[in-house]
Amino acid sequence: MVPHLTTSLTGPLLALEKQIIDARPAIERWFRLKWTEHTVPFYSSVDLRNAGYKLAPVDTNLFPGGFNNLNPDFMGLCVQATMSAVQKICPDTQRFLLVPENHTRNLFYLQNVATLKRILEGAGLTVRLGSLIPDLTGPTEVETAGGEKLLLEPVQRKGNRVGLDGFDPCAVLLNNDLSAGIPGILRGIQQSVVPPLYAGWTTRRKSLHFHAYDRAAEEFAKLIGIDPWLINPVFSQCGKVNFAVQEGEECLAANVDAVLTEVREKYKQYGIDDTPFVMVKADAGTYGMGVMSVKSPDEVRGLNRKERNKMAVIKEGLPVTEVIIQEGVRTVETVNNSTAEPVVYMMDSYVVGGFYRINTERGVDENLNSRGMSFSPLAFATDCHSPDCGSNPDAPPNRFYTYGVVARLAMLAASLELEKLAEDFDEMAEPEAVTA
Amino acid sequence: MVPHLTTSLTGPLLALEKQIIDARPAIERWFRLKWTEHTVPFYSSVDLRNAGYKLAPVDTNLFPGGFNNLNPDFMGLCVQATMSAVQKICPDTQRFLLVPENHTRNLFYLQNVATLKRILEGAGLTVRLGSLIPDLTGPTEVETAGGEKLLLEPVQRKGNRVGLDGFDPCAVLLNNDLSAGIPGILRGIQQSVVPPLYAGWTTRRKSLHFHAYDRAAEEFAKLIGIDPWLINPVFSQCGKVNFAVQEGEECLAANVDAVLTEVREKYKQYGIDDTPFVMVKADAGTYGMGVMSVKSPDEVRGLNRKERNKMAVIKEGLPVTEVIIQEGVRTVETVNNSTAEPVVYMMDSYVVGGFYRINTERGVDENLNSRGMSFSPLAFATDCHSPDCGSNPDAPPNRFYTYGVVARLAMLAASLELEKLAEDFDEMAEPEAVTA
Repeated sequence: MVPHLTTSLTGPLLALEKQIIDARPAIERWFRLKWTEHTVPFYSSVDLRNAGYKLAPVDTNLFPGGFNNLNPDFMGLCVQATMSAVQKICPDTQRFLLVPENHTRNLFYLQNVATLKRILEGAGLTVRLGSLIPDLTGPTEVETAGGEKLLLEPVQRKGNRVGLDGFDPCAVLLNNDLSAGIPGILRGIQQSVVPPLYAGWTTRRKSLHFHAYDRAAEEFAKLIGIDPWLINPVFSQCGKVNFAVQEGEECLAANVDAVLTEVREKYKQYGIDDTPFVMVKADAGTYGMGVMSVKSPDEVRGLNRKERNKMAVIKEGLPVTEVIIQEGVRTVETVNNSTAEPVVYMMDSYVVGGFYRINTERGVDENLNSRGMSFSPLAFATDCHSPDCGSNPDAPPNRFYTYGVVARLAMLAASLELEKLAEDFDEMAEPEAVTA
Repeated sequence: MVPHLTTSLTGPLLALEKQIIDARPAIERWFRLKWTEHTVPFYSSVDLRNAGYKLAPVDTNLFPGGFNNLNPDFMGLCVQATMSAVQKICPDTQRFLLVPENHTRNLFYLQNVATLKRILEGAGLTVRLGSLIPDLTGPTEVETAGGEKLLLEPVQRKGNRVGLDGFDPCAVLLNNDLSAGIPGILRGIQQSVVPPLYAGWTTRRKSLHFHAYDRAAEEFAKLIGIDPWLINPVFSQCGKVNFAVQEGEECLAANVDAVLTEVREKYKQYGIDDTPFVMVKADAGTYGMGVMSVKSPDEVRGLNRKERNKMAVIKEGLPVTEVIIQEGVRTVETVNNSTAEPVVYMMDSYVVGGFYRINTERGVDENLNSRGMSFSPLAFATDCHSPDCGSNPDAPPNRFYTYGVVARLAMLAASLELEKLAEDFDEMAEPEAVTA
């Protein structure tokens, strides 16, 4: 099920994979000890790019929206991991209010919500869907792409608790990334909110995440004796950009140049005969919006109106003012001749599945999270979990183990990032006037 | 995969299952809270008997020996649960010394060891096998029923640590029930030993387990509003029995009578038209040895030589002096027309699989753990984990969930039992003179 690596540069990645597989006991111990010190996110998903010579995370989502794309044969792992997460976060809980995104027209997203609801129910929780859609006046039935029916009910605030008609939940599980801001109705409530409100894109920044990832990758690379660059994309950031009025172009160009220069040197060091490129992304962006791929600083100077419009606003129509300039990592993976990138799903500290995001219309150096994409579930190896089973490093179980390690490293970075955000959030957490 | 219930008395069990399924959120919450107060065993397996009107545990094993019988499709659950167990017990550990039973002629048991080793390796541990076989002079290769090769190495003691040549483990995992006594070589060592030494049959007593189960079942039955008898076999015990010289027969007969009387009343109350029977078992027995099925007190008086010999000694040739007299629970389950009983496997707090113990030669009121038995893996429901999926209570996912609940209740009892044993063990834990 895991497509073979199609690259002429098999050497370095196989070497990296072999190093990771050989160090497995040390790696697992390292993660175990990390999770005694840091709080593991309830769930997360990580987009990886596999360049053959390098395997790196390019985005970490704390409100994963593709549970419907996971292999249904391994739902048991999701259920078990959910039990573990609930045991840690709120053992006393038996009723969960699941708060999904507002875009009910995306029937595949609704299928994700239905799958997630089933997983939570499998772990023995009673689950109802609380919607934040402003004009939802009463319970509304929607149908998923799979034909399942879901009941969306407007979230109600009563004092310092939220709930639904006849439903007082013990905890709130967000599957809504809060791009539109932290809703007043959820501020200062008595119930546990997981992930915490400050994990939403109102407060998260990709740059903060990748700063945390730098730390995690550095320590991990030292542990197994590799160059951290092999698992970490170079990045930089610009804090005052306004694409609409062409402000901050020079900062952007300078940073693009700096990242490209650093990557060029690494390519030279490893004898990689490719043209470096960078991805310019909205620092608070998600859903693949506000992303452009550039190969030279000149490309970010004098953008035409169409290009500027594309970058100027992201989800919920928010203007972009901060950007991250990240080393582009080519994907050398293909599924049915289309460009593909792995997405790894985690619940609690466990890798529970994954899938390939496949884009028939995009190239190896482009953002695949855009129009024209489809999904293919990533297989778990059920017959061989151990590195000593005599397979090559690129055999599916080993390949998937390696993906899982790098994805968990990004999850650890998210945990460090949330600790930092929690500090800042305490100060700004003054409950706003609530109009429920 | 889960055979249908073949009973004329479908009413009560279906009712019990429905009550359990309906109370699922409350049950899961109850277990979660219990595991915040008590230590979950590393692993365990529970033999259940399903009488149609009653579903009860009859034996709880803290050194499960049938991992080879589990459905290989769900090994991922075992690996994930192992990760959780190791995280709790010894996160710092990366090398495990697995200590198996000494009977290397049982090739199926060796297959269990190989499977268990693979599970631990899947969780990222380095595992080697340390044998307690007294005359094992050096590393010895053995072959499992599946043709896998295992290397048994003699356990060595150095000061207050045990290990193998060139292998200093961080923890010792026992898959040896210590029926022959607590080996001096393992006493007072610095490394973690899981399960603890006092979990072996040197110190365990079935009667202590079922006293703990009484407490757990009582509280659970109250939680979901059922008669605890529906999940709990009546039992009694005799402390001074010597089958060889016919000592203690009257105590035995009196207790058999008392248990039968209590069961007869329950049968009357529920309108069950069956003849009650009891199982007389060695209180410290295992491996299905030292077990007899009787229907009247007269049957334990004047046992003939053959019967007495059968009861007089158990595993490792130990004499039987204490017995438990337990309500016999008929099994109404059949697989391919043979009598069957479910065995549920748990690692950490999770149900990770199970199988049917099938005995072509035994009746519905006999011990199936004996000559002539075979195994059939129990299926997990992968497509439906939730009770609201519209199936009948006896649909496989629901049936298996119910098994898992009763098995976890027995595991909780084992945890309470181990707490009690730990208190007593502290006193007798004076390290003996060690001759390694």
